[in-house]
Amino acid sequence: MPVGTQGTVKALTQQMLEEAGASIILGNTYHLYLRPGLSTINQLGGLHRFMSWEHPILTDSGGFQVFSLNSIRKLSEEGVEFQSHLDGSTHFLSPERSMEIQAALGSDIVMAFDECTPFPATRDEALTSLTLTEHWARRSKLRLGELHNDPAAENAGITIVNQTQALFGINQGSTYLDLREQSLEGLVEIGFDGYAIGGLSVGEEKDAMFEVVSRIAPLMPEDRPRYLMGVGTPEDIVDAVALGVDMFDCVMPTRNARNGQLFTNRGKLNIKNARYRDDAQPIDAACRCAVCVRYSRAYLRHLYMSGEILASVLSSLHNISFYLDMMGIMRQAITLGTFIEFRDSFLSGLARGQD
Amino acid sequence: MPVGTQGTVKALTQQMLEEAGASIILGNTYHLYLRPGLSTINQLGGLHRFMSWEHPILTDSGGFQVFSLNSIRKLSEEGVEFQSHLDGSTHFLSPERSMEIQAALGSDIVMAFDECTPFPATRDEALTSLTLTEHWARRSKLRLGELHNDPAAENAGITIVNQTQALFGINQGSTYLDLREQSLEGLVEIGFDGYAIGGLSVGEEKDAMFEVVSRIAPLMPEDRPRYLMGVGTPEDIVDAVALGVDMFDCVMPTRNARNGQLFTNRGKLNIKNARYRDDAQPIDAACRCAVCVRYSRAYLRHLYMSGEILASVLSSLHNISFYLDMMGIMRQAITLGTFIEFRDSFLSGLARGQD
Repeated sequence: MPVGTQGTVKALTQQMLEEAGASIILGNTYHLYLRPGLSTINQLGGLHRFMSWEHPILTDSGGFQVFSLNSIRKLSEEGVEFQSHLDGSTHFLSPERSMEIQAALGSDIVMAFDECTPFPATRDEALTSLTLTEHWARRSKLRLGELHNDPAAENAGITIVNQTQALFGINQGSTYLDLREQSLEGLVEIGFDGYAIGGLSVGEEKDAMFEVVSRIAPLMPEDRPRYLMGVGTPEDIVDAVALGVDMFDCVMPTRNARNGQLFTNRGKLNIKNARYRDDAQPIDAACRCAVCVRYSRAYLRHLYMSGEILASVLSSLHNISFYLDMMGIMRQAITLGTFIEFRDSFLSGLARGQD
Repeated sequence: MPVGTQGTVKALTQQMLEEAGASIILGNTYHLYLRPGLSTINQLGGLHRFMSWEHPILTDSGGFQVFSLNSIRKLSEEGVEFQSHLDGSTHFLSPERSMEIQAALGSDIVMAFDECTPFPATRDEALTSLTLTEHWARRSKLRLGELHNDPAAENAGITIVNQTQALFGINQGSTYLDLREQSLEGLVEIGFDGYAIGGLSVGEEKDAMFEVVSRIAPLMPEDRPRYLMGVGTPEDIVDAVALGVDMFDCVMPTRNARNGQLFTNRGKLNIKNARYRDDAQPIDAACRCAVCVRYSRAYLRHLYMSGEILASVLSSLHNISFYLDMMGIMRQAITLGTFIEFRDSFLSGLARGQD
């Protein structure tokens, strides 16, 4: 899922996303709640209509941003008080409030409100945190159900724009495998439409991350989507798919694009490099995206060096296309039963590097 | 002509320009000469191939930027020495060198090298300046002819990528009408494929500008394009078309877009304005551009207030579409013999303002 934090996948038009084959994007509840604010989006018919995106949208719970973007906060069983990173104003987020906000946005997949356990955490801290997350998961499900069963939802001051929202629970437990299992059991008992692995890609070693994914992914219900949050590089995604993960989100393709880092079948390419000054080749000869069929490395490098907005636009479009193509190829390979062959050849291509 | 200073019409992809109906764009010789530099563009087959734009391109002579972007310079009959605004390196531009550079770029319309007479100028200064411009115009024509007749062009160190370049002469003379006439006569005697009015929109009163256009446009050869350089607002363009001008270039639609100013059939609209916060309407209900058919004022305002790149992309796309549509409607009205009616109704719409 390309990440559209503020109701836009940075530097790309919705048409570009459609043409690149994006079938779902992610919106950040925290950012949209603060700006433009709930009433604007809700009044205009929800996030789909607001940003003119008629395909699926997943919204996160807001929890991750509350914990990562705000130093001043009060955390209790009830919820979390925080100050806006925009203007310092005070806000309160709880499982109930997160569901109301996501109901107002009208996304297709709602994430339960969780505490993203900081890393590192002691075993006790991790246990306390996942217990809180489990309580919050239960309250999330309860409140979202109420909102859907009471479309007027007068008490929340919002209009329900989408009564068929799915709800995903989030697995926590830091790097403690038994706590991860305990957390998953709790979530499955509550029952969700999909399950996510959260609290990874937050500073732990890559081995530790894959240890968790290896243990937890196979235990997640087979008939529900499995979503690994905030991951990652092409290598990480391919490895996680091999372990049974279905869904991902990451800002890497768009953020790195704006810094001149392009993804290719031969690994990363830094367009700032002087060797590309007169290079008439496309970014990736094996890529058939709208950028690779039309523009040269030399032109992209010139745009980047000149500080032109088009550098961000074209680089983001290529990187998003590269990621989406990679996912499409994996889906096809899985269907054909050739995933292992694809993985070996793809990973060795990435490792080979540019000629 | 949308202005593509550094080989890109700021914030727009070439596909967007094509879909908006741009049939010709302008490139700035001065900027492209300094970065990425002649050898890169020439080696890659010229500016069309470098930026992947297979439609016409007009390049300016570089003169205007040398005089406006550089404080340190030496001007002589031979040419002008200047220091790069990028790194302070010293360069020399002359009619001959400007033709060599534009030949290396391979644009379809080349502008003769001129001195853009500063404003204000005394009559003597204006006369000296236009005389220099006339000498330079003659030398420009001579050198471009040599380059086209000697495609190897060994002595200039460039490859001739386009042997059918047209050359336009530039009228100067400040606000002195008799000097303007004298300048035009000199140019017509030399003989060019098209004629431009330069040295306007440089600080003079609007009345003074239109006095010059009113006097000079009707005297320009009827069978050659008449080009008013660096103009302007929708009102100015419509008025200049009424006086017989055919071609324009201006950074206004793209530059103003990046500052949140949008052009509409009801005059300008500042998207920052709080009144648009919850406004579900398109920028201009009478506009059928790719932005107006899909996005609301509320969404565009949100993007602008959030500092999102997409604000620049969509605002530029709308403004360029608005300008190109306006030109298309004028061409049609002229063909139908209804130009005066169009002008009256269009100008009164602009003056009416937003509801």
